[in-house]
Amino acid sequence: MIVSLTHLDTPAALIDVPRMQRNIQRMQQRMDNLGVRLRPHIKTSKCLPTVRAQIDAGAQGVTVSTLKEAEHCFAAGIRDIFYAVAMAPGKLPQALALLREGCQLSILTDSLAGAQAIVDFGQQHDTNFDVWVEIDCDGHRSGLKEDDKALVQIARLLTRGGSSLCGVMTHAGSSYELDNQPALQALAEQERRVCVSAAQRIREAGLVCPQVSIGSTPTALSAQNLDGVTEVRAGVYVFFDLVMHNVGVCRRDELALSVLTTIIGHQPDKGWIITDAGWMAMSRDRGTQRQHRDYGYGQVCTEHGDWLEDLRFGAANQEHGIITLQNPASLDIVVRFPVGSRLRILPNHACATGAQFPHYHACEATGEVHIWSRLHGW
Amino acid sequence: MIVSLTHLDTPAALIDVPRMQRNIQRMQQRMDNLGVRLRPHIKTSKCLPTVRAQIDAGAQGVTVSTLKEAEHCFAAGIRDIFYAVAMAPGKLPQALALLREGCQLSILTDSLAGAQAIVDFGQQHDTNFDVWVEIDCDGHRSGLKEDDKALVQIARLLTRGGSSLCGVMTHAGSSYELDNQPALQALAEQERRVCVSAAQRIREAGLVCPQVSIGSTPTALSAQNLDGVTEVRAGVYVFFDLVMHNVGVCRRDELALSVLTTIIGHQPDKGWIITDAGWMAMSRDRGTQRQHRDYGYGQVCTEHGDWLEDLRFGAANQEHGIITLQNPASLDIVVRFPVGSRLRILPNHACATGAQFPHYHACEATGEVHIWSRLHGW
Repeated sequence: MIVSLTHLDTPAALIDVPRMQRNIQRMQQRMDNLGVRLRPHIKTSKCLPTVRAQIDAGAQGVTVSTLKEAEHCFAAGIRDIFYAVAMAPGKLPQALALLREGCQLSILTDSLAGAQAIVDFGQQHDTNFDVWVEIDCDGHRSGLKEDDKALVQIARLLTRGGSSLCGVMTHAGSSYELDNQPALQALAEQERRVCVSAAQRIREAGLVCPQVSIGSTPTALSAQNLDGVTEVRAGVYVFFDLVMHNVGVCRRDELALSVLTTIIGHQPDKGWIITDAGWMAMSRDRGTQRQHRDYGYGQVCTEHGDWLEDLRFGAANQEHGIITLQNPASLDIVVRFPVGSRLRILPNHACATGAQFPHYHACEATGEVHIWSRLHGW
Repeated sequence: MIVSLTHLDTPAALIDVPRMQRNIQRMQQRMDNLGVRLRPHIKTSKCLPTVRAQIDAGAQGVTVSTLKEAEHCFAAGIRDIFYAVAMAPGKLPQALALLREGCQLSILTDSLAGAQAIVDFGQQHDTNFDVWVEIDCDGHRSGLKEDDKALVQIARLLTRGGSSLCGVMTHAGSSYELDNQPALQALAEQERRVCVSAAQRIREAGLVCPQVSIGSTPTALSAQNLDGVTEVRAGVYVFFDLVMHNVGVCRRDELALSVLTTIIGHQPDKGWIITDAGWMAMSRDRGTQRQHRDYGYGQVCTEHGDWLEDLRFGAANQEHGIITLQNPASLDIVVRFPVGSRLRILPNHACATGAQFPHYHACEATGEVHIWSRLHGW
């Protein structure tokens, strides 16, 4: 479906398709040069045309954050799917259904209890699950330390229990807290080294551990070598956002997602512009709050995307954005930003802002705008 | 559709229906006693069975935050609908379409430019819009001060231009920042006094101003008299949440919305429990952060809803919740909270958490669980 941007109802989530394509090319070329396969994490877009663009550019398989994403991708013909959240035993029937339909689904665990549940369920249903073991490379969330005794125990339990051990995986999520290349390169090397070392421990125990999967957008864009790694997972690079801009891994002209909004009022005495993009449109994500530049609820731009440095999006209610002009005495705010005119907001966090919308409006270089639906919920 | 809570996939948004019904009764009886009509704001639930329960209890008409909500309610047979966000001129065709189908839609403005756009569009399309004028009673967002010259000018512009002036409305949104009854009662009286005074100014100018509409959940539950007020709008009272609990207008046993989640792992050394409810399920709303008790991403409870005071939901990634046991040395976290077992989380902000889900699971006193769909997007 093609719509006109001029008559688009607001708030609307816009994808700048040429920027998205360049972002996809940039990451794919980097992974090609480093000699690893790219398995993009689709939790950012949750949108098939975006995923297809990634596969067309050379990505092999996808990473998902929910089984609903897996079902959606498989229904669209994508077979190689890695569900990269530790498997809840209660979700095993849903995974089994996908396997029985022919999906090449792989799943994840980081505990003996989780592995035992997978093995037991697999044996009860005469099914071999393909299973990854999660490694903790930076202490930020889940996974086993590389030297945890349970690592080899889990690998052995899975293998003896009839599951196939795909390999080990890790995610250096703490990379979002960095903001300079030396630190990013060091963390990328740590992510690689720890995960390769975990695979080595399993191999030294006499078990097969074919793959080593790592990844986060900042480390993927900073790694100097990926020796021993077989694949990289990364997600937010497809759109980038202000958090990534603060981390230092993307330029302004690589920010591919924005929210179009209409000005609905003012409080001239306070220098306030009121818009129809509140937190329901932007999400409550304030990811830049603790970074070196706090963008409030997003960077305000003109309708055409030029940054308005004297505006700050400092507060949001459900369907109201409150944008403050830094020096309201300098001009007549009501004249410069009249009711009915429009602004464009760059989000802090593309994954969170995208999730607020049932569909994106994908803006092509030709001026055509297509509606791309996206997944919601579980 | 009836499902079993025991086999429910997680994360899931649960409504405790008996609590919701009691919350609806409580607010309705209060408004009945104060002699005003209740026009609930459906932006919290965005869910027809909830709205029907409000109407069955005595509510008259609804308040909406988007025209999509208006269309959804009108399609379900609700005619009297107030779209309580200042009208963007670009949305007037959508409002006109509703009017032409027989919807008794009323709209809002707080500026001469906005009023002029409504009048011009109405004249071009031979339509009279029913219009409210927004008053600012506490400086927190939109609206005209009661003594702003533009108030009577807008009322006159609308009336002469062929629109019907419904009256004046205000919303004391700053009530969310309070936490004691004297302050809430004072703000409720301020909300009433300012809005009645604005109506009086319009009447003194020789214009008709039939209605005075005020409301926020905290002030609605604190007002001592509503002389001069004709209707109250309130939203979040239908479910309540931790922000409202901190404000002091609801008890623990009135919190009707929760998120069911499954434990998927641990970091025993840190006392961490990892769950499948991250910020995608809870939302990024940290509304209790600046209140007297900060609940992190929500209050952790047992699967059956008992508060677990020694757990803190301090961090969230997209599909991972990180819950910390205050004194991890005191017991074996893996034994007490095994992988696959479930917890229930009370959200900071019901409007934001609900929006993350395509449907609620409505839990009746009988144990039956119904799926209630909710609106997403614009």
